[in-house]
Amino acid sequence: MLNFELYNPTKLIFGKNQYEKLKTEIPKNATILMTYGGGSIMKNGVYNNVIKALQGYEIIEFGGIEANPTFETLMKAVAIVKENNIDFILAVGGGSVIDGTKFIAAAANYEGENAWDILAKGALIKTAIPFGTVLTLPATGSEMNSGAVISKKETDEKLVFGSPLLFPKFSITDPTVIQSLPLRQLQNGVIDAYVHVLEQYLTYPSNAFLQDRIAESVLQTLIEVGPKVLKNPSDYIIASNFMWCCTMALNGLLSKGVPTDWATHMIGHELTALHGLDHAQSLAVIGPNLYKVQFEFKKEKLAQYGKRVWNLTGSDEEIAQKAIIKTQEFYQSLGVKTSLSEYSNSYKDTSQIISNRFKERGWIGLGEHKNINLEKVVEIVEMSY
Amino acid sequence: MLNFELYNPTKLIFGKNQYEKLKTEIPKNATILMTYGGGSIMKNGVYNNVIKALQGYEIIEFGGIEANPTFETLMKAVAIVKENNIDFILAVGGGSVIDGTKFIAAAANYEGENAWDILAKGALIKTAIPFGTVLTLPATGSEMNSGAVISKKETDEKLVFGSPLLFPKFSITDPTVIQSLPLRQLQNGVIDAYVHVLEQYLTYPSNAFLQDRIAESVLQTLIEVGPKVLKNPSDYIIASNFMWCCTMALNGLLSKGVPTDWATHMIGHELTALHGLDHAQSLAVIGPNLYKVQFEFKKEKLAQYGKRVWNLTGSDEEIAQKAIIKTQEFYQSLGVKTSLSEYSNSYKDTSQIISNRFKERGWIGLGEHKNINLEKVVEIVEMSY
Repeated sequence: MLNFELYNPTKLIFGKNQYEKLKTEIPKNATILMTYGGGSIMKNGVYNNVIKALQGYEIIEFGGIEANPTFETLMKAVAIVKENNIDFILAVGGGSVIDGTKFIAAAANYEGENAWDILAKGALIKTAIPFGTVLTLPATGSEMNSGAVISKKETDEKLVFGSPLLFPKFSITDPTVIQSLPLRQLQNGVIDAYVHVLEQYLTYPSNAFLQDRIAESVLQTLIEVGPKVLKNPSDYIIASNFMWCCTMALNGLLSKGVPTDWATHMIGHELTALHGLDHAQSLAVIGPNLYKVQFEFKKEKLAQYGKRVWNLTGSDEEIAQKAIIKTQEFYQSLGVKTSLSEYSNSYKDTSQIISNRFKERGWIGLGEHKNINLEKVVEIVEMSY
Repeated sequence: MLNFELYNPTKLIFGKNQYEKLKTEIPKNATILMTYGGGSIMKNGVYNNVIKALQGYEIIEFGGIEANPTFETLMKAVAIVKENNIDFILAVGGGSVIDGTKFIAAAANYEGENAWDILAKGALIKTAIPFGTVLTLPATGSEMNSGAVISKKETDEKLVFGSPLLFPKFSITDPTVIQSLPLRQLQNGVIDAYVHVLEQYLTYPSNAFLQDRIAESVLQTLIEVGPKVLKNPSDYIIASNFMWCCTMALNGLLSKGVPTDWATHMIGHELTALHGLDHAQSLAVIGPNLYKVQFEFKKEKLAQYGKRVWNLTGSDEEIAQKAIIKTQEFYQSLGVKTSLSEYSNSYKDTSQIISNRFKERGWIGLGEHKNINLEKVVEIVEMSY
């Protein structure tokens, strides 16, 4: 097992009818910026619940944070925070709203000239506006971690940042929000959580017996509840287990003491930036092909995964091969397409464009061994056509 | 799944050679009370490592915290904290030292007349001295939770308390400490962690699919590494997985969203108070008999446990029965005795004494259904003779 530090001070408030707790979690007399997305919270009742719970607070609203939140949009919120002496930000939404809020929280206090440097140059975050979240869409785990992904329209970039200062102070996660979600968002949520686990698990053996088993627990539970939540999102038992899996998949626990990959995400981000695939769709397209190209380096964990999660039998090599197919079939069984050509007609140059972009950014190799070079990226992307 | 709140701000620093981080985690210029136990830290090098890492700090030492730490001993440390304006307490030891330190941290700031009221009356803890830990004995999970168990010599009592203010700020957990531990402490550690999981798992089904699987992960890992760590505590792979299991068994995660039992602990504490059994020994004696007496209420989870953790086959009823036997045999295989008569010759009145004590304290029933009445306590204890 590798050395690690585990630190996660977010208070997760999980379950039904928890909105009342907003009052005890947000400091009295705080001026709040309330961030949200396209307005689904108006339809599903969450907006009303939040506003009702926050009576007596001064609230400024900032709606319109888009899926794959952009620097351009978020900088408008940063201006509002600065102008209005905002003390606390409350993100009401899914991963995009929460990720966007993390950027707002960091950028509002950023002293450098250009806040994009937080992403492009990894500029140090020294302070951040405190924030909490009300989660409306389980998928990304952003409600209980300190990282975020932000896009820049101007340059079609999608980059990652994080800081220990960017854990939400609290997150209210109510599984009843799931019943009003569109099918596509549920499909995405299952795959997003599933791939988050695989990024932290499907590497090479590192004698982290317990982490492996916990990762397998999340995968097994997602396989059990994923198809059911698509069919009946009002089933609270299924919805609550699904939501809890999404949080546990990326709240930091699974990565402790083990190597991690994240190459599927890095390549997938480019498919989103170039072709507008949903984040989870990009992961479903890239993941299985990446495992094929990296087979020699991942086969031991693939075999363990195949045996324990999919109950496959045969030689280790056979099980490892079958496990990749099982994974791809699982995504397809959820109704998610796993080839780029199913999403776009103009994909032929994608491998070269992505390769060139990685090169421009200063390439150091991807994956747990940092041995996914540009040739392999091209191979993975072309296998994904 | 039940509603829950998950909050755990302890920074866990896990692995080899982490003592240097004490300097970054303890505030500069703090006057430190360093608490420890019987002096094993002098022999295993931990004392020297800590003192070396804390050069420049003013340190007052308080050694001699006993296993099952007593109110009487701890109040001496409370006096030292008050007299010396202590800013930070560093517990260097196992669960007893850490539990004792939690009491010192709370009692030093307690405004009431008698600090024992924190335990006897559940008096509210409003502030506490901040503290961190260097763990030398994996077992109790106290390094990453906010609860503690304290004994009172005068009355042979052993009571539980806790507060969200009593999470360690940090805990340094280095698996190499395990190599110098006596066999008995390792045996106790395996059983302690195992029973901690069972208290949070072996209740009734509550549709918490993921928590169940994570609990089973810890049990499976303990079954795998437990016997090995007794044979070769210097094996870092085994030691690190064992240590991580002990923390995960009681850092709060497993109890989220599920009912919990804790009756084995409540009855076991009395065996320790009356007959001096080690904490883990008392759990190994009581647990299996409690499951037998509560069989009708636990049989569904016992069957799930038997299937998934012990790979048992048969009817659910048979599997549930066999699972209890497997559990008892597992404790015995670790060299731990599972009958009270193996520890004491004068045990005949134990069931009545415990029953009377519970009655005196204002009995409300134990276990996940609160249906373990005094008659059942007598039955469980007598089955344990």
